[in-house]
Amino acid sequence: MLRVAVVGATGYTGEQIVDIICKHPNAEITFLSSRVEQPKPYWEQFPRFRGRLDVNLEALDADKIDEVADVVFLSLPHTVSFQYAPLFLGKGKTVIDLSADYRLKDYKTYEKFYNVEHTDVDHLKDSVYGLPEIYRDEIKNSKFIANPGCYPTVSALSVMPVVKAGLNDGKVIIDAKSGITGAGRKGKLEYHYAELNENYFAYKLFKHQHVPEMTQTLENVSAKNVDILFTPQVFGFERGIYVTAYITLNKEMTKDEIMTLYKEAYADEPFVRLYENGMPQLRSVRQTNFCDIGFEVEGKQLVVCACIDNLMKGAASQAVQNMNIIHGFEETAGLI
Amino acid sequence: MLRVAVVGATGYTGEQIVDIICKHPNAEITFLSSRVEQPKPYWEQFPRFRGRLDVNLEALDADKIDEVADVVFLSLPHTVSFQYAPLFLGKGKTVIDLSADYRLKDYKTYEKFYNVEHTDVDHLKDSVYGLPEIYRDEIKNSKFIANPGCYPTVSALSVMPVVKAGLNDGKVIIDAKSGITGAGRKGKLEYHYAELNENYFAYKLFKHQHVPEMTQTLENVSAKNVDILFTPQVFGFERGIYVTAYITLNKEMTKDEIMTLYKEAYADEPFVRLYENGMPQLRSVRQTNFCDIGFEVEGKQLVVCACIDNLMKGAASQAVQNMNIIHGFEETAGLI
Amino acid sequence: MLRVAVVGATGYTGEQIVDIICKHPNAEITFLSSRVEQPKPYWEQFPRFRGRLDVNLEALDADKIDEVADVVFLSLPHTVSFQYAPLFLGKGKTVIDLSADYRLKDYKTYEKFYNVEHTDVDHLKDSVYGLPEIYRDEIKNSKFIANPGCYPTVSALSVMPVVKAGLNDGKVIIDAKSGITGAGRKGKLEYHYAELNENYFAYKLFKHQHVPEMTQTLENVSAKNVDILFTPQVFGFERGIYVTAYITLNKEMTKDEIMTLYKEAYADEPFVRLYENGMPQLRSVRQTNFCDIGFEVEGKQLVVCACIDNLMKGAASQAVQNMNIIHGFEETAGLI
Amino acid sequence: MLRVAVVGATGYTGEQIVDIICKHPNAEITFLSSRVEQPKPYWEQFPRFRGRLDVNLEALDADKIDEVADVVFLSLPHTVSFQYAPLFLGKGKTVIDLSADYRLKDYKTYEKFYNVEHTDVDHLKDSVYGLPEIYRDEIKNSKFIANPGCYPTVSALSVMPVVKAGLNDGKVIIDAKSGITGAGRKGKLEYHYAELNENYFAYKLFKHQHVPEMTQTLENVSAKNVDILFTPQVFGFERGIYVTAYITLNKEMTKDEIMTLYKEAYADEPFVRLYENGMPQLRSVRQTNFCDIGFEVEGKQLVVCACIDNLMKGAASQAVQNMNIIHGFEETAGLI
Repeated sequence: MLRVAVVGATGYTGEQIVDIICKHPNAEITFLSSRVEQPKPYWEQFPRFRGRLDVNLEALDADKIDEVADVVFLSLPHTVSFQYAPLFLGKGKTVIDLSADYRLKDYKTYEKFYNVEHTDVDHLKDSVYGLPEIYRDEIKNSKFIANPGCYPTVSALSVMPVVKAGLNDGKVIIDAKSGITGAGRKGKLEYHYAELNENYFAYKLFKHQHVPEMTQTLENVSAKNVDILFTPQVFGFERGIYVTAYITLNKEMTKDEIMTLYKEAYADEPFVRLYENGMPQLRSVRQTNFCDIGFEVEGKQLVVCACIDNLMKGAASQAVQNMNIIHGFEETAGLI
Repeated sequence: MLRVAVVGATGYTGEQIVDIICKHPNAEITFLSSRVEQPKPYWEQFPRFRGRLDVNLEALDADKIDEVADVVFLSLPHTVSFQYAPLFLGKGKTVIDLSADYRLKDYKTYEKFYNVEHTDVDHLKDSVYGLPEIYRDEIKNSKFIANPGCYPTVSALSVMPVVKAGLNDGKVIIDAKSGITGAGRKGKLEYHYAELNENYFAYKLFKHQHVPEMTQTLENVSAKNVDILFTPQVFGFERGIYVTAYITLNKEMTKDEIMTLYKEAYADEPFVRLYENGMPQLRSVRQTNFCDIGFEVEGKQLVVCACIDNLMKGAASQAVQNMNIIHGFEETAGLI
Repeated sequence: MLRVAVVGATGYTGEQIVDIICKHPNAEITFLSSRVEQPKPYWEQFPRFRGRLDVNLEALDADKIDEVADVVFLSLPHTVSFQYAPLFLGKGKTVIDLSADYRLKDYKTYEKFYNVEHTDVDHLKDSVYGLPEIYRDEIKNSKFIANPGCYPTVSALSVMPVVKAGLNDGKVIIDAKSGITGAGRKGKLEYHYAELNENYFAYKLFKHQHVPEMTQTLENVSAKNVDILFTPQVFGFERGIYVTAYITLNKEMTKDEIMTLYKEAYADEPFVRLYENGMPQLRSVRQTNFCDIGFEVEGKQLVVCACIDNLMKGAASQAVQNMNIIHGFEETAGLI
Repeated sequence: MLRVAVVGATGYTGEQIVDIICKHPNAEITFLSSRVEQPKPYWEQFPRFRGRLDVNLEALDADKIDEVADVVFLSLPHTVSFQYAPLFLGKGKTVIDLSADYRLKDYKTYEKFYNVEHTDVDHLKDSVYGLPEIYRDEIKNSKFIANPGCYPTVSALSVMPVVKAGLNDGKVIIDAKSGITGAGRKGKLEYHYAELNENYFAYKLFKHQHVPEMTQTLENVSAKNVDILFTPQVFGFERGIYVTAYITLNKEMTKDEIMTLYKEAYADEPFVRLYENGMPQLRSVRQTNFCDIGFEVEGKQLVVCACIDNLMKGAASQAVQNMNIIHGFEETAGLI
């Protein structure tokens, strides 16, 4: 059994990784850390793990992790990973970093959008962006994954086949809606149940920090620049991201022609599901690693709808998918 | 006191009209109808009205309505209003029709989008489209209101100042999200709590029947054709519509310049609220007649966010706003 | 117009009072305070009040309140009211205190259950417990109201007629469920949307601080001691309390006999609604000042179901009901 | 791999069984039926199964089931199982019936509470009530399981140790709250999202059909009659049952003494979790087969809180737990 440490195990993403690994046929949790004074059973904080997992939650202890774990998931706020990723890479561990710290290959873009200094530029070149649908081969041969953000995962997957084919003309508009767990597990008034119940709002128009990440991904597959207009919005849900993308094609196309492109792009993908009829529903991807995609086209106007579970394909289960690829397990192990 | 009849009082919109009139300082409910065998207290079906309203729910009785009511709200499915609007107009009543039957001035467009015959073309010319922010003067002098649809109300208001100024270039993209009460009060599996809880999906891409209605409104204020791309979506909420509109301007503009247009357009509007900072939130319009609007612009790209309560400004409270205008009450009476 | 100040206007209860007074025909908001550095429009913090209310939110200023207000609602945490109630009473204002500070006539019970010192025992004798269904006459002649807690309001009303008649034998079991706004407007992790969505749990078994309050009320109407077993529970809702009460009667009774008792007790009550058939539903009291009550009996076993909106009859609208009674307005003014 | 047929695969329970079996290490779905005209992929109706399951949904075909399945789950309305249980038992299949048809050993009680004739009294004696915590040994040797109802499962488990020890005096009060999936997957107005959102109500006081089932279970472990007062209530949630049970003990006891009883009763139970501190939360059992139990005692008064997921331990996952026991798999296989 592959031995797994989760650093930052009390966030929604960390908790989700623990849950997935508990059910994984080839891996097991051996270390869980968070900022705690005294070690205590993980299930004391998360009672859903009672009777399922007997690992303590304790302060981060690099030596102990070195001893008991083969894979380290870093489920940390950005800038904090700078300290730990090099440390565990140095000890030969597989490191899957769920922060934004190693996603952008151009550290200056990182510094601009996150408004902090990038203090580990050295390891940037070693990280592989963990979107298997595009970088599976690189992932296979890597021990250091920069796990994609939630918005960038579904945004990139939603339009990739069209952008790759160079069919987009002008802006790619991504109208994205996210559940609140995407904002993290914190005691803030704006996350209060009564503030979010049946609420909906847009935020950070024209300036969300995830835009360069999706641009980087799409420009990597495209011969030309990709100009993304991204509108993040929160719906008063626990989980899920639904993206509605608007692309003006550079020529008129039929639905069949577009579908052919999507089928080619995702033919062997176990976690991308294409809808020939109808549009995807958020519920169908809840608690799963799937990305569901549907679209309609009229003349040159394409509208694509795609959705994921932000804590799963948008974070935890995609991280485990990367672990599966790196360690030679069935890619769907523990995920389907 | 103005005497009010509601025909179709058991739908969500009908019930909402009853609720508003119960609190209205100048009007009172005198007749409520639905398809019932025997008259029974309205509060038996809607216990929230216990102790507040002592009117029976009974089968439609045109003679009785003639006798006891001055205003008739028709809260009926489309095509059903064709029978009743002429009847009550003939008796000199103020008729406020909440169906789609008299909204589109071109009956052939109606027939195409609703896929039925328009059987009362004669009265089409008499109806006034009840969007006070554009047609207040006509409403004042009318006795026959075609009350706007929920999507068309907020969609038109969100972009009207820009479209009126002829600044839009190419398609106006309206990405719209609606709560489920917009679909009516029916026992369908797809409206089941467990099907909608934390669910979200797009539907009727490129072909929603509300598109010609918003096009008609916007073309009425614009010197040129308006090409709308409308994407209706359902979020698993009870109430509310949130619209995110994307417009390419025909020149670069600043936020201040756009704001000036909006302020001019809505200067005297009691129910349109403009956000100089931040974006509107759905909760702020819940249970109100307000339409809240915010936007950001970057170069030629404008993004507008606007929201209403679909049962209120999108139906019932806008209908009462029209009643207030016609009958010379304070426009905000019972609504603020 | 009666001039109203709300001290503590940024909690859920304070905001609800503001909303009710905005629509009240005989009262108007003239002062709103909270812990703020600089005065700013109230609607900046609560955008739902945009275009409805032009009063600033500012730091508490007793002199200014003295000048501009006739009634002061204290919507403060317990122990904080000790400072302000005497101050405004001294200035001749009507003071309606929504904290627990003046509810319990025995200050030692207060000290025990709230685990703090009672520092204003002097004014305890002046306060009237603001449950109009029992203390209307005293309220009429008072200027100082201790507004009841949410749980105690519905718990007491649910069983009062039976307890008053001395029919209860042994414990009165109150199984109570509350929406989360009952816990206040604070940025705590346990109030996070994702922690509460579809969640439910019991807490403080056998020791909730509201028990002595409901006991005091019921013992005031009963000739004997009342032994209450109270189980508070949270359901992942925004609003509402639903109480299921279990009473063993000291003799077998029919439903009709019990109903006669309830009808006598609540005959003239504008805000208590009795269900002859069926049980009340939480939705029917949402956003209202009503308390809905239904029950079934079998032999000696009585089960009563009752519900209120915790922010309305459980706090804000009951406070306004008290204001109406004191100031001689229609008791239902602004509330129906 | 054990081959599994699900008859009635389009209800919430049927769908949940399919989901569990899809992830089960020792079983696979081979047949799915419902009332459909033409066979079609199951994932067409339930898109969450796209890419996970390639079995058709088709009309019931007993011969085909005989051929392709070892286990038949009957997820049918009551009275319908009478036709199919004998049929598949006759073919030597393991039959796990999720209806109420074979749960009550006294068919007259069935007839009274379900108000229909029991048309297969012959097989009643062969069925084993599938509550493993009490009947594991009988389940092991059976091929015919009457899978318990959702309310009876958690109600019985919540108080069983105390009732078994004969400590209860007088009525056992079970105040139970259920999510709406417990009522089945049907297009009824009362299940509409807008009717249930933030709603709560009691129903069927003193007469729910599940009472004799929990009475039968508890009387089987007790030396004396068990008098249950059961109050079913619906909370506007998708899933979950939370039970608050009130028992008067026949002597004063400490929490430790009670805990000893519970620990003895559930020592080896993989799916019952006892809370020494605090009370269980519904979220902790969501999507699991666990029953979480906590309690407090004061003198002779015991209050027990217990919860399950109604579709899991209350139906589908308990059915699979029974399958695991019968077929010699790890009891937790596919369930933890």
